[in-house]
Amino acid sequence: MAAACASMPMVSSCDQSKTVSKQPNIVFFLVDDMGWVDSSVQYGDELYPYNLRFNTPNMQRLSEVSAVMGNAYACPVSTPTRTSIMTGMNAAHMGITNWTSPMKDTPSDATGGGFAMVEGKADGNAAEGNVLGRPQWNVNGISPDPDVAYTQYCTPLVRLLKDEGYFTVHVGKAHWAAAGTPGANPYNMGFCVNIAGTMAGMPRSYQGMDRYGNTKELWNDFAVQNLDEYYDTPTHLTEALTLEALKTLEYPIAHKQPFYLYMAHYATHTPIQRDERFVQKYLDMGMDEGQARYASMVEGVDKSLGDIMDYLEAKGVADNTVIIFMTDNGGNSENKQKGGVPHTQNMPLREGKGSCYEGGIRVPLMFYWPKNTKAGKCDVPVTCEDLFPTILDIAGVKSPQTVQEVDGVSLVPLIREGEGVDPLRTLVFHYPHKWKPYDLEDIDFLSSARQGDWKIVYRIASGKLELYNLKEDIGERNDLSGEYPEKTREMAALLGEKLRGWNAPMPVVVSRGEPAPWPDML
Amino acid sequence: MAAACASMPMVSSCDQSKTVSKQPNIVFFLVDDMGWVDSSVQYGDELYPYNLRFNTPNMQRLSEVSAVMGNAYACPVSTPTRTSIMTGMNAAHMGITNWTSPMKDTPSDATGGGFAMVEGKADGNAAEGNVLGRPQWNVNGISPDPDVAYTQYCTPLVRLLKDEGYFTVHVGKAHWAAAGTPGANPYNMGFCVNIAGTMAGMPRSYQGMDRYGNTKELWNDFAVQNLDEYYDTPTHLTEALTLEALKTLEYPIAHKQPFYLYMAHYATHTPIQRDERFVQKYLDMGMDEGQARYASMVEGVDKSLGDIMDYLEAKGVADNTVIIFMTDNGGNSENKQKGGVPHTQNMPLREGKGSCYEGGIRVPLMFYWPKNTKAGKCDVPVTCEDLFPTILDIAGVKSPQTVQEVDGVSLVPLIREGEGVDPLRTLVFHYPHKWKPYDLEDIDFLSSARQGDWKIVYRIASGKLELYNLKEDIGERNDLSGEYPEKTREMAALLGEKLRGWNAPMPVVVSRGEPAPWPDML
Repeated sequence: MAAACASMPMVSSCDQSKTVSKQPNIVFFLVDDMGWVDSSVQYGDELYPYNLRFNTPNMQRLSEVSAVMGNAYACPVSTPTRTSIMTGMNAAHMGITNWTSPMKDTPSDATGGGFAMVEGKADGNAAEGNVLGRPQWNVNGISPDPDVAYTQYCTPLVRLLKDEGYFTVHVGKAHWAAAGTPGANPYNMGFCVNIAGTMAGMPRSYQGMDRYGNTKELWNDFAVQNLDEYYDTPTHLTEALTLEALKTLEYPIAHKQPFYLYMAHYATHTPIQRDERFVQKYLDMGMDEGQARYASMVEGVDKSLGDIMDYLEAKGVADNTVIIFMTDNGGNSENKQKGGVPHTQNMPLREGKGSCYEGGIRVPLMFYWPKNTKAGKCDVPVTCEDLFPTILDIAGVKSPQTVQEVDGVSLVPLIREGEGVDPLRTLVFHYPHKWKPYDLEDIDFLSSARQGDWKIVYRIASGKLELYNLKEDIGERNDLSGEYPEKTREMAALLGEKLRGWNAPMPVVVSRGEPAPWPDML
Repeated sequence: MAAACASMPMVSSCDQSKTVSKQPNIVFFLVDDMGWVDSSVQYGDELYPYNLRFNTPNMQRLSEVSAVMGNAYACPVSTPTRTSIMTGMNAAHMGITNWTSPMKDTPSDATGGGFAMVEGKADGNAAEGNVLGRPQWNVNGISPDPDVAYTQYCTPLVRLLKDEGYFTVHVGKAHWAAAGTPGANPYNMGFCVNIAGTMAGMPRSYQGMDRYGNTKELWNDFAVQNLDEYYDTPTHLTEALTLEALKTLEYPIAHKQPFYLYMAHYATHTPIQRDERFVQKYLDMGMDEGQARYASMVEGVDKSLGDIMDYLEAKGVADNTVIIFMTDNGGNSENKQKGGVPHTQNMPLREGKGSCYEGGIRVPLMFYWPKNTKAGKCDVPVTCEDLFPTILDIAGVKSPQTVQEVDGVSLVPLIREGEGVDPLRTLVFHYPHKWKPYDLEDIDFLSSARQGDWKIVYRIASGKLELYNLKEDIGERNDLSGEYPEKTREMAALLGEKLRGWNAPMPVVVSRGEPAPWPDML
């Protein structure tokens, strides 16, 4: 799909005739914070030890008929990926490179630690030389309306689908925008139905007995909405959302209307809490409490996928329903709740959520389009902004009019043929932020790009460039920048060109009062 | 409509052909706690002083083309009316005679005061002779699933409409059931879309700047859900709900599907808070702060009605859209927040919300069915359980299969012709509960029935019967029971027969350990 940038008004009415065509239904099953090796599905060249720790028969079942993308990417954190899917834009292009806070106009960037602060003033602990200040970025996320401060104005994917006749259903986590802006509301994005989607990026609790956080003791902005039916019952959030999703599909199926189900689970984001249905077997396997909790949450998600697949079959619509399975960023390896040894949970990948190393950005992705899928592994690198054109292509939306410039390309040729998308595209990942109140050298202020087997990592805080060959070194252990200075410069130029062209957010170097240099301007 | 009681399974799939028929759209505009005289619309034989205090041009505009029911009734409190509309049953027949608590299995009955207590044990203040204990009632409300404790099992109105091809939209207050039961969830009732409907019977706050209660300081079970977009903006809840309602209508209108919009405003329930758009004029008129706040909330509701009417016209569907305007019980006259003099706010009617005197049960009701309405006043007594068969009749649902026995009758003949419904039906109102922690003699433990111009009031606590002639004495000031003992016995028998036949909840007389007697068994 060619990038489209038009000022034409959005089509807001639907041609009735479109609703009776053979447009496929689409289920976009998006999991939160579940890493590349956190299931029994083999996305890599081999099965890794972590793959063996998870019981995910339904993901396995789906993978057997799917085009399984072995080199699929997302952004290092949630909102950039979710907004990228909704717009087709790279996160750095949108200026949405961090998660959106529930509060309007409020950056979520952490402060403190050794090399970061906010608003151009160094904090007490910072060493003067490498102090970086918070970048200017679109802290309010995306907006379907123009002229909303600190947002990327866009024509949302779902609005285009709705205009094309799709019955569009949102279930679970939205997290595209801050409260008090139009993008916080799934209805503004084009959803016909919204269950539990808000500005929240995590649930207050997964437990029905906790009312998902809706109690005087627990409540905060992340209490999950719309699930009163399950209060005071042992229903895990993942199960409740699945049941609600299936209820909402009854209407479009009965009316023979194509549907788009955006099944965006809150799981497996923190808080890492037991899914009581599954946890015991993992404890019996010898996992620690945190590991067992996490594995039980993954299995809860797996059951949800299976229940949806079973439902589609029972309703007789499975043959005309595309299933897309994806996660929104790498597994979280920087949280004690998950047990185990921090920063190792995505092995063989380096680091995890938040990082522009592979552990933070390489994600599960598979497509099942009945009668249109070349099942098996596909290793062409693809990324989250490709979902926008891909989904529109599947839905038969030929020339979408969008106010934004789309960066992604349709992956339909890969789904159908396993080829037909340029394997040498430059994919860009950008996290010009500080994540936690303490320093995380392999997460904070990183930027990276992949082209073919090569990957450049720009450590903005130190001004250092690293070069890796992913084919030989998926774990990014051997920095080849000294050995291949020319390739390093070439890759830095590719990354720099993209970031500069998008006017990407960059942290401010406090001592100079100006943004940190582009990677090819060091 | 004949009462239907069948064990046949509910029809859960929809015939596509039905969706392209000329079924009218239906907007059911239900206001909360707004009394009979709380608008400029004349429901009585004359305009009363209170009618002059409210600025409601859109209600007026609607009334000019509507069948205006001058003798329309609801239950004394919210849940019984709302569940009655959903089932077609009288509240006493359902055993749902009080509002449902957010907590499952938890009666909302008050305790304390001079003549009431809970669980069969007198409290310290109670005089032994007339101590009444809480009745057994269906404290969890209605349920679309069988075998849920303390519920009335039912085939919900909205499920029948959905099965008939309606796109069904819930906006605002639901309050049919306690949290943790299926009836708490509008999706289970047959709604395709739910905005802000929960087990809550009131909003935590009407103010967008308060996030409608979704803040650490304010939060409780009544914080309103699904409105993140309006957080930290001055958008009044009534306005936010209206905007969301109109968004959801876009889809069925575009797809030429008939829709049922249940626009159930939280206003004008407590908390009585300013609608800043309108409050100043009422202060300028000399109202006290409480009165002005309340009047501004009513005007906010009026604007909502007008905005919806304007939208329907702009979309070209007004000619095929029925509008039903109603409120759920009498105006609240027992709350200091409303200003003025308590227990006078529904003058000329006696008492207010909670009471089986006219002030608690007589409500605004009007119907506008384009090309099918005999506009003008209609004084045949009608009541809330009539809405179920009326709405199904309008929608063309000829022989609905329901698991419950329906008590109401279709009012379509009245809408079309102004006659055709028995004006001498016995209408029954039943509140066998204690409302507040202090005694309210004209509210607590009352039961009443109307037949023609006659009304019997049974004061259960004292065992006293009162008789009124509403035609001559709309204010129920002159008890005629001494003058007309035969008529009193006749009316008591009508009321007793109904209550007994329904096995209606009755409070327990503690000294005897048995239910209070039926009114014809004194």
